Amino acid sequence: MTRSSSFPFELLKCDLSTAARRGQLHLPHGIVQTPAFMPVGTQGTVKGLSIDQVVATGAEILLGNTYHLALRPGSDLIAELGGLHRFMGWDRPILTDSGGFQIFSLGDMNRVTEDGATFKSHLDGSTIHLRPEDSIRIQEELGSDIAMVLDHVIALPNSIEALRDAMDRSIRWAARCKEAAVRTDQAKFAIVQGGLDPELRCQCAAKLIEIGFDGYAIGGLSVGEPPEEMYRILDVAAPALPVDQPRYLMGVGRPIDLVEGIARGVDMFDCVMPTRNGRNALAFTANGPLRMRNQCHARDPNPIEADCPCLACRHSRAYIRHLFQADEMLGPTLLSIHNLTFYQRLMQQARTAIENGTFASFLAEHRLRLSGNIS
Amino acid sequence: MTRSSSFPFELLKCDLSTAARRGQLHLPHGIVQTPAFMPVGTQGTVKGLSIDQVVATGAEILLGNTYHLALRPGSDLIAELGGLHRFMGWDRPILTDSGGFQIFSLGDMNRVTEDGATFKSHLDGSTIHLRPEDSIRIQEELGSDIAMVLDHVIALPNSIEALRDAMDRSIRWAARCKEAAVRTDQAKFAIVQGGLDPELRCQCAAKLIEIGFDGYAIGGLSVGEPPEEMYRILDVAAPALPVDQPRYLMGVGRPIDLVEGIARGVDMFDCVMPTRNGRNALAFTANGPLRMRNQCHARDPNPIEADCPCLACRHSRAYIRHLFQADEMLGPTLLSIHNLTFYQRLMQQARTAIENGTFASFLAEHRLRLSGNIS
Repeated sequence: MTRSSSFPFELLKCDLSTAARRGQLHLPHGIVQTPAFMPVGTQGTVKGLSIDQVVATGAEILLGNTYHLALRPGSDLIAELGGLHRFMGWDRPILTDSGGFQIFSLGDMNRVTEDGATFKSHLDGSTIHLRPEDSIRIQEELGSDIAMVLDHVIALPNSIEALRDAMDRSIRWAARCKEAAVRTDQAKFAIVQGGLDPELRCQCAAKLIEIGFDGYAIGGLSVGEPPEEMYRILDVAAPALPVDQPRYLMGVGRPIDLVEGIARGVDMFDCVMPTRNGRNALAFTANGPLRMRNQCHARDPNPIEADCPCLACRHSRAYIRHLFQADEMLGPTLLSIHNLTFYQRLMQQARTAIENGTFASFLAEHRLRLSGNIS
Repeated sequence: MTRSSSFPFELLKCDLSTAARRGQLHLPHGIVQTPAFMPVGTQGTVKGLSIDQVVATGAEILLGNTYHLALRPGSDLIAELGGLHRFMGWDRPILTDSGGFQIFSLGDMNRVTEDGATFKSHLDGSTIHLRPEDSIRIQEELGSDIAMVLDHVIALPNSIEALRDAMDRSIRWAARCKEAAVRTDQAKFAIVQGGLDPELRCQCAAKLIEIGFDGYAIGGLSVGEPPEEMYRILDVAAPALPVDQPRYLMGVGRPIDLVEGIARGVDMFDCVMPTRNGRNALAFTANGPLRMRNQCHARDPNPIEADCPCLACRHSRAYIRHLFQADEMLGPTLLSIHNLTFYQRLMQQARTAIENGTFASFLAEHRLRLSGNIS
């Protein structure tokens, strides 16, 4: 820890053969062991799980979605009820995104000007104008431990001019976000944009660092580009960020992407894959995914993973398959629990490997095991 | 306990001013405190709840549906996997119904002959013939603690001739069920039919007692008749049953119906109301039901019931409403947990009232409080 901060990031160990790091991020609602995976709680709930069940997966920090919560039930209502932690009954750290990505992916007819983004709500079609200052105000009302700056997300591939324009705007918006911040008990993270262009990524990182934030995210990846392209950007973007501050790869990803991200120096991840795939009957395992509706599981007395401590793995594969065949809610719930547990165990194994100086072989093993996973 | 039985029913206390009884039913997978409410686990799961969550509601015995489990995944598969307890991960008592009511209510084109019932599966339209002997074989494969005899259920109102015909057939089928029984570690309960005719009910009870069973159910009620009609039948049917054996009122009902049933000497109940209503955003409370989608709950920081220990009541009404407005799975799960906890607490309060000799005032209070509940 070389930089004074209200949200200290302690680097406990750095791997010698890769850029992997083992750290601890100190936040108002607790300490997060990194590398960390954040389950997504879009609407104030990790879909299908009670808070007890989320805790049991090993999660130490959740992600909440500013876009969704601002539209319903409203950040004013959540603030009135004591903030997002109290509202959803989770007393550990929360990171809220800024809404930038959801405006891009969900909002109809989104139109971006220098002032902010105008979009139609996916709920009722009403027109909403969101400025960087609004995003910060909403996130301060939600009371998350980490707020993200509002960024201008554009589709990939795109022209270098469009990428640069969106990136420059994102940087100006980041500065406005920092300026708008009032709460001192909420970390503010900036987002490095620049598409698949290494030079833009480095320029963006440098300018954001100059403004100064409590942590840095790498955004706009895992939006359809081949994984190798994403890794190539991480190879340049991660080293461009301060070594003594947390790095967060947004919206990524498959188990192998997490391992590859850690190898490149990423500390934090979030993704809907474990829960979304769980709801669709796909179970992650150390040997690749299983489609639990498959007939081959119909009479299988074994659990999904014999060494997994989760609630789903107290049951047979036959039972899990039956729940999906019978369209029972417990099926999606149990597989979401299993998949989140799988992701948390993968993070725990990565942390242990970094601590023990065995991350290089951990990486090699997972490249073998997890290649060919669902894309 | 005056009768020797493999499944002893201990009468601990009888109320002096009503017919209410406090007992303990000894079954292969444990002891059930009566009066008892059995949550319904139709397809090998109490809809939306993990087994841990079912245990936390206070339930000591579950109901499983022979009709559903026989069609999917099949009783042979469940037997191969070690029986229904192991399949669903519940190691306490289970009662399975016989399929009679589901054939009546779900099967297309059901046709009953003396041999058995022929119906079309609601899943794939295939024609299935179920004899009393098949129902017992299936329930023995499932391995429940209590099996119900197959009965011939008919619609109400109906002619006295049709009622008598179905009742007589149900009695003959009950005798065939007893004859077909092989397992000695499974109690067999008979079902008293006879519609809304007190005389038929008494005749049916007498004939079933003559054959001899481990317990007796009162069936064919709560199928649309006014509650007073049901209470009137209970007034004659319950006293017609052996005092030293358990009495089970099938498929009933509203909280007030449970209290009225206990007052008439019923020991066991099952009903889908707590879970089905929970999924539809209705919360039971001691002061009547709450519709949780209602706007009046939008900013309410209070729990559904302040003194309720359930998972849902750790949250505000505002949060529960938000979950339903946002169509989140956790809403139905939390309200199912709350409603099952409400039913179990009501049973616990009734048991305590009988023990303390205060059941008469408990009954009077609940007649005041719960009248006007949803019908």
